[in-house]
Amino acid sequence: MQSYAKNVSMTVVRRLPKYYQYLKDLEDRKIEKISSRELAQLMGLTASQIRQDLNSFGAYGQQGYGYRVSELKEAIRKILGLNETYDCILIGGGNIGQALAKYTLYRNDGILINAIFDIKPDEVDRTTGISVYHLDDLEDYLEKTPTDIAIIAVPRDAAQSVSERAVGAGIRAILNFAPVDLELGDDVIINNVNITDNFYTLTYLLAEDKLIREKQKNQK
Amino acid sequence: MQSYAKNVSMTVVRRLPKYYQYLKDLEDRKIEKISSRELAQLMGLTASQIRQDLNSFGAYGQQGYGYRVSELKEAIRKILGLNETYDCILIGGGNIGQALAKYTLYRNDGILINAIFDIKPDEVDRTTGISVYHLDDLEDYLEKTPTDIAIIAVPRDAAQSVSERAVGAGIRAILNFAPVDLELGDDVIINNVNITDNFYTLTYLLAEDKLIREKQKNQK
Repeated sequence: MQSYAKNVSMTVVRRLPKYYQYLKDLEDRKIEKISSRELAQLMGLTASQIRQDLNSFGAYGQQGYGYRVSELKEAIRKILGLNETYDCILIGGGNIGQALAKYTLYRNDGILINAIFDIKPDEVDRTTGISVYHLDDLEDYLEKTPTDIAIIAVPRDAAQSVSERAVGAGIRAILNFAPVDLELGDDVIINNVNITDNFYTLTYLLAEDKLIREKQKNQK
Repeated sequence: MQSYAKNVSMTVVRRLPKYYQYLKDLEDRKIEKISSRELAQLMGLTASQIRQDLNSFGAYGQQGYGYRVSELKEAIRKILGLNETYDCILIGGGNIGQALAKYTLYRNDGILINAIFDIKPDEVDRTTGISVYHLDDLEDYLEKTPTDIAIIAVPRDAAQSVSERAVGAGIRAILNFAPVDLELGDDVIINNVNITDNFYTLTYLLAEDKLIREKQKNQK
């Protein structure tokens, strides 16, 4: 099972959380097995895509039977690394930071936000029960507290410098919500969630849709 | 220039906002031209990827010269549909909703949030100056006010029903921040921003990294 650590494309990796969510839903609905065709229909993929994706992590399906929902869900949970817990800190206690802190959902999957850092700690909402510190205490905290992930939710201009500080104090994985590409060296795992980009993708699709409609109108 | 409306893969489309952001930064830094090689280095792509991507929308580069930054930026701005303005509403005034409302950044690119709808309108922060309405008023508002995009920032359980209501009242494009796949028919353009998925991608990469390190250790 360790062979999956290489040669799997990021496109497939990025589909895994979706498999996991769908399988969790199926399990909640007490569905015990599902064929690749049914799973494909549910997820808007093709059956052969499903088989290919899942085969790249090991062969869980059975010809003529399909997949055992719970078994496959557990396997993907493990592949996603969710059988372990992750100690996280959140840098930036503004609106996005607060929203993330409140997503108790993550707690179920072992993603624990242990501390929030902000330059105005007094203004950060404390209803989540998570300790709030001044950003000045970042290095001190990280020195004392083993931490896996830093979630960056500060404004664009501050993102690079606070990330460098976190990495300098031992952080090796970053989930970045600031709309900027961080440069932190090859040893740091970074996942960017660029909300602006998602707006632009939508305006692109709207503009394209408009063009297609105008074209169709002109052809009539 | 209308030929781009088809046959462009979503992978390329999803890279366009990144081109746009980089070119805006270059323009801000008064850089007038850039080669595909330089742009590739900056963006972490290959020069041939850059040329291929940009060619699929029309040929803007010049052999031996490269790209004129402002020209290319404007071209991509148009392709992204950002030469028009987009009237948006925000459904859900919680933390994520508030963060989006405050992203004044979007205003520069003609993405206007005109109204916020919530089931507890009295509890929504009004410092953004955006009108806040009760969710009950959604259909009434949409009947009177031309609106292009509905941004869904409600909890998972409410997302499908409020989206159906928005689509029923004429909305054709949705930016969905709820962690659920909406089913709204083929006529509706949906872009999902699944924050949970981004956490899982990161835990996957961390787990993979750990496996690789253990493997290297065992080989020693």
